[in-house]
Amino acid sequence: MNEHGSADAARTPVSVIGLGAMGSALAGAFLARGHATTVWNRSAARADSLVAKGATRAATVADAVAASELVVVCVLDYAAAREQLEPVAETLAGRVLVNLCSGSPEQAREMAEWAAGHGAEYLDGAIMTTPPGVGGQDMMFLYGGSAAAFAAHRDTLAALGDPINLGTDPGLACLYDTALLGLMWSTLTGWLHGVAVAGADGVAATAYTPIALRWMTAIAGFMTTYAPQVDQGSYPGDDASLDVHVAAIQHLVHASEARGVDRSLPELLLSMIERAAADGHNQDSYARLIDVLRPAASA
Amino acid sequence: MNEHGSADAARTPVSVIGLGAMGSALAGAFLARGHATTVWNRSAARADSLVAKGATRAATVADAVAASELVVVCVLDYAAAREQLEPVAETLAGRVLVNLCSGSPEQAREMAEWAAGHGAEYLDGAIMTTPPGVGGQDMMFLYGGSAAAFAAHRDTLAALGDPINLGTDPGLACLYDTALLGLMWSTLTGWLHGVAVAGADGVAATAYTPIALRWMTAIAGFMTTYAPQVDQGSYPGDDASLDVHVAAIQHLVHASEARGVDRSLPELLLSMIERAAADGHNQDSYARLIDVLRPAASA
Ligand SMILES: NC(=O)c1ccc[n+]([C@@H]2O[C@H](COP(=O)([O-])OP(=O)(O)OC[C@H]3O[C@@H](n4cnc5c(N)ncnc54)[C@H](OP(=O)(O)O)[C@@H]3O)[C@@H](O)[C@H]2O)c1
Ligand SMILES: NC(=O)c1ccc[n+]([C@@H]2O[C@H](COP(=O)([O-])OP(=O)(O)OC[C@H]3O[C@@H](n4cnc5c(N)ncnc54)[C@H](OP(=O)(O)O)[C@@H]3O)[C@@H](O)[C@H]2O)c1
Repeated sequence: MNEHGSADAARTPVSVIGLGAMGSALAGAFLARGHATTVWNRSAARADSLVAKGATRAATVADAVAASELVVVCVLDYAAAREQLEPVAETLAGRVLVNLCSGSPEQAREMAEWAAGHGAEYLDGAIMTTPPGVGGQDMMFLYGGSAAAFAAHRDTLAALGDPINLGTDPGLACLYDTALLGLMWSTLTGWLHGVAVAGADGVAATAYTPIALRWMTAIAGFMTTYAPQVDQGSYPGDDASLDVHVAAIQHLVHASEARGVDRSLPELLLSMIERAAADGHNQDSYARLIDVLRPAASA
Repeated sequence: MNEHGSADAARTPVSVIGLGAMGSALAGAFLARGHATTVWNRSAARADSLVAKGATRAATVADAVAASELVVVCVLDYAAAREQLEPVAETLAGRVLVNLCSGSPEQAREMAEWAAGHGAEYLDGAIMTTPPGVGGQDMMFLYGGSAAAFAAHRDTLAALGDPINLGTDPGLACLYDTALLGLMWSTLTGWLHGVAVAGADGVAATAYTPIALRWMTAIAGFMTTYAPQVDQGSYPGDDASLDVHVAAIQHLVHASEARGVDRSLPELLLSMIERAAADGHNQDSYARLIDVLRPAASA
């Protein structure tokens, strides 16, 4: 292996099972980096364009698994992956299985146990981009599972995006994926709510949004400040107390009401802030809301 | 005026009325840039440290207004500002009044009318930072109102942060402020919800948050894509349809439930996505949620 591990990485053959929109993008990215790439899809025709670019078509899942030490699977869901892989379980022994289907942490942990039971190293991944983003070097690919497998194949997986090792729990990638999508829905809905409020007074979404994007940097700063507060269980509210937030969010509720904009999101947020501020926590920071969200036992 | 307008700006005298945490920071930033700065506060002692740094103490609000062509007011709220300024309204004629109190767009528009009625140019601003951030050159100070006043004093106001001219409606700064704070609460609550989900499986907030911060860049990209969709009223869902979001957010609801994490936020978001997807819009992009949020008449 050279200094950057890239020579070996480029020589690692890869098999990709599942050539939907995402699987095709993954196989294409491996090919573009010069990996010998074997492909299989249930509907065989989906392999055609990859074969035209130099991929090898496997006739069966067993052939695909046998072709490479590194086997990447990206089909609809865990059930589909298990359906294809269980009949060829014995072929997996000694190989590294990288599962990039979306699912729950529980499904990922079950699949890891199943793979270990058949002598395979297992990595479970989450793809934090859409197919056109695959191959972009700043796109996050999250992995949890075998540390040895990640170390051995990090450079090969870097063909797909930036590989991030979350730890040895194979449920971590699905766990982060779920949490990150939640952040996305909250953020996008809060942004659209603001677009609706500003829009009611004649402001275009494309006028408001550049300011919102700059403000996101400030919000990221609050997250950076509050993360250690959550871990330490201490919530100093010097920058802005829950009392200040309660007063300010009432303006948002009123501004929404005055404009006929749906109030359910600010009203839910207000009720959460009020619950967090109860029991004498009203001078704490926004991070105190963690107690409203997480299970009562650990609060 | 030199090429950058800075020589004239540095010579512009400024009066600051209201020396709470924020007003003191504003006056301090003007002083630091070399402006002759006159200050007044209801409780006079709050001016002491600024006077020690070179500010001039005004004995009365009338004296503070008379001292400078540019008068910045930053007291608790609009009512407090009106209470102090109404008795000295005649002194305002020919001056520029910059109001940096927080309030509603309606209050800002009323105050602009009142100021115009007394011959003053009026700018209404919103400060998108906390007192320690004042003076930082990337901190956003949003302004709406007199175009002439903004052009004349942009360079002086740059002592406080980055002055952004939203337009001639004096309600715009309060409008944006309200919308941006809504984005903040949604984002922070969505982030904390993910912290709670990940935390239930043993992931520290400080482990999850750096990944969440990188993901915010992707979310910003979605906002950039969706803003013109809202303005154009066309919501192509090629990147991810509402159907895909409904399926994925159900995983978040289940993951929350399985961990005893509060489900009210993902459940509200799910119900909004389902309403947006109704009537055959299920293949549209997330931006279609604007129809659920904004007033029915304009939807
Ligand atoms: N697209 C994205 O933006 C994105 C982003 C992150 C993660 N993902 C995840 O990536 C995975 C694949 O998504 P995709 O976008 O590629 O979906 P897709 O375009 O709908 O393709 C689905 C793939 O799954 C295969 N499949 C379904 N059921 C199967 C079964 N029982 N046995 C074998 N193959 C089966 C399909 O094979 P046929 O061609 O034979 O039907 C096809 O290859 C999903 O878990 C998805 O959540 C996608
Ligand atoms: N702090 C922030 O992070 C922040 C951020 C953005 C915007 N703002 C806005 O900035 C404004 C000032 O906030 P702040 O943080 O400086 O608040 P603060 O530290 O509580 O100070 C309040 C100021 O208002 C004055 N005041 C209150 N009622 C008055 C009245 N009837 N007549 C005259 N003066 C009166 C107080 O005078 P006394 O000293 O005599 O009581 C004091 O100078 C508010 O509108 C706030 O929303 C603050």
